[in-house]
Amino acid sequence: MHELRKDPLLGRWVAVLKNSRSPSDYADYDVPSEDTKEGPCVLCPGNEGKTPKEIAAVREGGRWLSRVIPNFDPLFRIEGDLGRKGLGMYDKMNGIGADEIVIETDDHGRGPEDIGLEQVLRVVRLYRERMADLERDARMRYILVYKNSGKSAGALYLHPHSGIVATPIIPKRMKDELDGAKQYYAYKERCIFCDILREEMRLGDRVIYETKDFFAFSPFASRSPFEFWIVPKRHSCAFQEITPSETEDLSLMFMTMLKKMRTVLRTPPFNYFIHSAPNRIPRRDHWHTLGEDFHWHVEVIPRLLLTSGFEWGSGFYVLTTSPEDAAKYLREA
Amino acid sequence: MHELRKDPLLGRWVAVLKNSRSPSDYADYDVPSEDTKEGPCVLCPGNEGKTPKEIAAVREGGRWLSRVIPNFDPLFRIEGDLGRKGLGMYDKMNGIGADEIVIETDDHGRGPEDIGLEQVLRVVRLYRERMADLERDARMRYILVYKNSGKSAGALYLHPHSGIVATPIIPKRMKDELDGAKQYYAYKERCIFCDILREEMRLGDRVIYETKDFFAFSPFASRSPFEFWIVPKRHSCAFQEITPSETEDLSLMFMTMLKKMRTVLRTPPFNYFIHSAPNRIPRRDHWHTLGEDFHWHVEVIPRLLLTSGFEWGSGFYVLTTSPEDAAKYLREA
Repeated sequence: MHELRKDPLLGRWVAVLKNSRSPSDYADYDVPSEDTKEGPCVLCPGNEGKTPKEIAAVREGGRWLSRVIPNFDPLFRIEGDLGRKGLGMYDKMNGIGADEIVIETDDHGRGPEDIGLEQVLRVVRLYRERMADLERDARMRYILVYKNSGKSAGALYLHPHSGIVATPIIPKRMKDELDGAKQYYAYKERCIFCDILREEMRLGDRVIYETKDFFAFSPFASRSPFEFWIVPKRHSCAFQEITPSETEDLSLMFMTMLKKMRTVLRTPPFNYFIHSAPNRIPRRDHWHTLGEDFHWHVEVIPRLLLTSGFEWGSGFYVLTTSPEDAAKYLREA
Repeated sequence: MHELRKDPLLGRWVAVLKNSRSPSDYADYDVPSEDTKEGPCVLCPGNEGKTPKEIAAVREGGRWLSRVIPNFDPLFRIEGDLGRKGLGMYDKMNGIGADEIVIETDDHGRGPEDIGLEQVLRVVRLYRERMADLERDARMRYILVYKNSGKSAGALYLHPHSGIVATPIIPKRMKDELDGAKQYYAYKERCIFCDILREEMRLGDRVIYETKDFFAFSPFASRSPFEFWIVPKRHSCAFQEITPSETEDLSLMFMTMLKKMRTVLRTPPFNYFIHSAPNRIPRRDHWHTLGEDFHWHVEVIPRLLLTSGFEWGSGFYVLTTSPEDAAKYLREA
């Protein structure tokens, strides 16, 4: 019989199929053999004049190694006021915020993980730098770092890139995580992520990889087969509070895990995102307990399956490979 | 500037782009020109021996017009006990429930809406009949009727079919809806759906179609472009409580709306689901207020876009066509 599992953070149930599919059973996805936009790549060196004005960059010997630009057609804009207002029984506001593209390398065909640890480190540092800058704006309530890789994961470019979005509201998914973590904390007086780390280390069968400061594992009730999370061992609610030595260690973890995923699943489309606490700088009071009950982390989701109407309509996910089997494949890669 | 809108039921924000895309801008999806499983269709007449044992059917003159069978590889099974238990800090249980396929017509290439009102009515009656049967089982907490049409909407067959799943838990998405509706009711002492209906009728710009007993409109903060909801005008929490005359009226609404959608979006992949109250028969006490604060409805989601990492990671959706423009296209079709 299939097993149902409850996610302790979100209170969501998933079904884990009795017979796990192996990595080769997920062969249907598009390999990123060609660019998802036509014509020469606008993110490549030489086309700097065609992009919006650069926000940040890492340069060496006259060339850039990675850079951050505003999105070409931004979802959110910095200029303007929030204009929050009621409209009959509804609520609306202006699309104030930020929408940036991180061009991860100057190499169209290779991701930072192929170039080396130094390049991954440059990208992680840019993430941190941009988040620290954006959180100074009191209108920004949340800042999300995310990556789309592959057309069916929503990527608009083949050139390695990720995104940073700052929003004037806390998105629903984050609210749910914060609420779940807060409820657990209210009951146990402990951080749920710290408890999950201890439990996973004790059990071992969902562990994938461990570095000095970070831990990678398959969540007990993952949404997607081969989903994994990277969690810092030291309790900290905000990614921006990462230390320089942790930054180096995270880069090693990122590089190792992305390579493992690619080896096992043969370059799948995937997304990752950093879930960090909401912007606390302008409102320390309101979120003063947050430092204890939330714990930042990275979620990595290979996009191996299409979402059916059952999943859309119910929020109940079907896991075609068990987290234990997924962890074993990734651990041994 | 783009506009941000808050969904009053789920508390989720979406971004509505300033320049709406027109239907012809969504041309990328696969047309269902071939079957999604190879070989002869197992749902067609003549192959009854190859399907699991029939649960219900509508017959006329020796042939069946629609039938319900257990899923070939069911996600949930009726036999067994729930076996709910803790596992360290986690929770799990057995996959007890039901997983059925409704074969909507005996015609491989035409949906009920192409055959006529009588055929749509047969399908809607089968939905009702199966829900009423399944809710008698005290282990079933929720029953979801849903449809996947088109490969990229998760359909495994081209032959017109839908699904009915009964689960021993209330799925996350339903919990969120129930909680949202309950909060609104606690504050206003009115049903949020009844309020939305009144508001939409008053404003008119998101109205698509109206029958004697039902109302179809584009939600103010839809998740997907061209999403629409069908809501009964009479307050009722459970689909099973629909009257015979409402059943006929709903069939007319379904037929009209599916045809409008197909005309405007040229046979898009889509999902729909009926959101009804959780199973109340075995536990009238626990849900005794539910009759007042929840209101059953149908959500129809054309699958026009891929979900990116930003949406997966945040639960914040980007609406590339405004609900007002979508309603106008559908209304005028």
